[in-house]
Amino acid sequence: MTEQMSRIALASRPTGAPEAENFRLETQPIPTAGEGEVIVKTHYMSLDPYMRGRMDDAKSYAAPVPVGGTMEGGGVGEVIASNSPLFKPGDYAFGMLGWATHACVPAKELRKLDPNMGPLTAALGVLGMPGFTGWHGLTAYGQPKAGETLVVAAATGPVGSMVGQLAKLAGLRVVGIAGGAEKCAIATDTFGFDACLDHRAYETATELRADLKDACPDGIDIYFENVGGKVLEAVMPLMNNFGRIPVCGMISWYNAGGLGAGASEAGLTAPGLWRSVLVKFLSVNGFIISNHFDRYPDFLKEVGPKVASGEIRFLEDIAEGLENAPAAFMSMLKGGNTGKQIVKLI
Amino acid sequence: MTEQMSRIALASRPTGAPEAENFRLETQPIPTAGEGEVIVKTHYMSLDPYMRGRMDDAKSYAAPVPVGGTMEGGGVGEVIASNSPLFKPGDYAFGMLGWATHACVPAKELRKLDPNMGPLTAALGVLGMPGFTGWHGLTAYGQPKAGETLVVAAATGPVGSMVGQLAKLAGLRVVGIAGGAEKCAIATDTFGFDACLDHRAYETATELRADLKDACPDGIDIYFENVGGKVLEAVMPLMNNFGRIPVCGMISWYNAGGLGAGASEAGLTAPGLWRSVLVKFLSVNGFIISNHFDRYPDFLKEVGPKVASGEIRFLEDIAEGLENAPAAFMSMLKGGNTGKQIVKLI
Repeated sequence: MTEQMSRIALASRPTGAPEAENFRLETQPIPTAGEGEVIVKTHYMSLDPYMRGRMDDAKSYAAPVPVGGTMEGGGVGEVIASNSPLFKPGDYAFGMLGWATHACVPAKELRKLDPNMGPLTAALGVLGMPGFTGWHGLTAYGQPKAGETLVVAAATGPVGSMVGQLAKLAGLRVVGIAGGAEKCAIATDTFGFDACLDHRAYETATELRADLKDACPDGIDIYFENVGGKVLEAVMPLMNNFGRIPVCGMISWYNAGGLGAGASEAGLTAPGLWRSVLVKFLSVNGFIISNHFDRYPDFLKEVGPKVASGEIRFLEDIAEGLENAPAAFMSMLKGGNTGKQIVKLI
Repeated sequence: MTEQMSRIALASRPTGAPEAENFRLETQPIPTAGEGEVIVKTHYMSLDPYMRGRMDDAKSYAAPVPVGGTMEGGGVGEVIASNSPLFKPGDYAFGMLGWATHACVPAKELRKLDPNMGPLTAALGVLGMPGFTGWHGLTAYGQPKAGETLVVAAATGPVGSMVGQLAKLAGLRVVGIAGGAEKCAIATDTFGFDACLDHRAYETATELRADLKDACPDGIDIYFENVGGKVLEAVMPLMNNFGRIPVCGMISWYNAGGLGAGASEAGLTAPGLWRSVLVKFLSVNGFIISNHFDRYPDFLKEVGPKVASGEIRFLEDIAEGLENAPAAFMSMLKGGNTGKQIVKLI
């Protein structure tokens, strides 16, 4: 009898926030590895905000997940069968394994994991794409200078916490924004931010801006953009001349659909946004980390030891079981997680 | 009897497009040069879109002109009295002389003009701030590569024509946008653009975009932003991944007042604009040329000979008489000029 695997398929495209009905748990036989392919049994899979974008049928950095296709995502696991000289059973690897208990993938698309790099889950968060995203965005576009002020939202998440900790190490004042008093306490106590504001405590961007101004008495030099919406609106008038804005996400706008056409925030207009770029000489750079994998070895070399020494800390939220992945994902999009959201599969 | 001079004062702040009543022609005695100062008799003064911003009482790159103050602007003229070792009567100089027949300015704020650099007016246009703006924006942020496609509006103006000609010399496909068939013909015939679209022929950004798409079969790699509004809205969906957008102006939005808050274009929302930056990995850089004067010698060295040889061409619109400066300025803001707008004072 053929051994079975489970996967989560995209059952239908969401309009607005995804709902349970957009996902479908399916069972199928584990495929056989073709030439150059390996079968990986996934131990942990990653849940990330970008996956919301893949559910839409809109032009974005990557092709959308087809309806009926397996939800995309990174994962780490053990090679259980190999038809490639690159891997042997028992090796551990990271790759785009999808939302599934097993994956059949070309060996050359997998990255072998160094067992000395720390726990397996680190490859999904602090030393994986989110941590790398924070490091690359800050170093390549943020260009931090000691004494400057940086603001980052989703402060306890895997990107925000990396950005904030690196900026602190570089001598900046770091102000986080997070959802809820508990996360704010973690940002300052665990991650060493100078201050953290609870965006849920503010009804409007104007109110948030008033307290943000107090927390950033010298203005904002770097706004690491990963949420969009109210935070962006609060931040823009506080940006200093020659400010830098790396843009790696806008989770608050993802659910607005393809082009966010109906999602204009009160008070934040296209001309207003564009004018700020001009009159403050801002440098705004959109990026996705998959275009910059050439820098990954540099990232590991610089940040790996800091994680090992505890100089850079990280938090993980671990859900259990593939069947609970959709709920964990939907919760994450609403800020239900505190640290890196992971699903444990075995 | 003390010799008299004339100046144009800001009589009141405009709401929307400036009107004649916002300006006042005044006469006063020519001041005496203090220690380190010189008196310049202005021969030509420059009119530029940025001056509209100075009329508003809003945070911008520079302090607003106070009500009752002389309208700001660059000019070239002859030194007629000097209280500085740096200049002697008979020298020619460029400086921020204001909208006035004479100016009393610190000698160290003036730049002596090389009589071999070409006609005096070149210091206001092709080899002055507008030309320098085009060169700096293109080279520093546009990063042109042969075979790419560049779009620039106000194609026959002193910034747009510089950008387009430099890009052609670098091997790019260059598509201009201008107001009226006559200007479009000048863009292609005089300045060598590959194509030029008349934005007045399109009611909506969508219509403009359709023809722009045909004119840019490989998409747009560089959009040199100097107008905002409908053109930006038409361009954004056509931008290629890794596109660059130097932002040096947005004349179509200047009249919307301080923050352009009421000027949202139909269809172009802040989230839509921001999302394009993210999903296409755009690099957007706002700048004003006065922050980059350190590169001016490089500009003159590279572009000066090309202007002298005729490889880079330029057009000037010359109005006569200080009293006609407000009308020429108001006309320019509506696209009434074809080339660099200058006022001849003597």
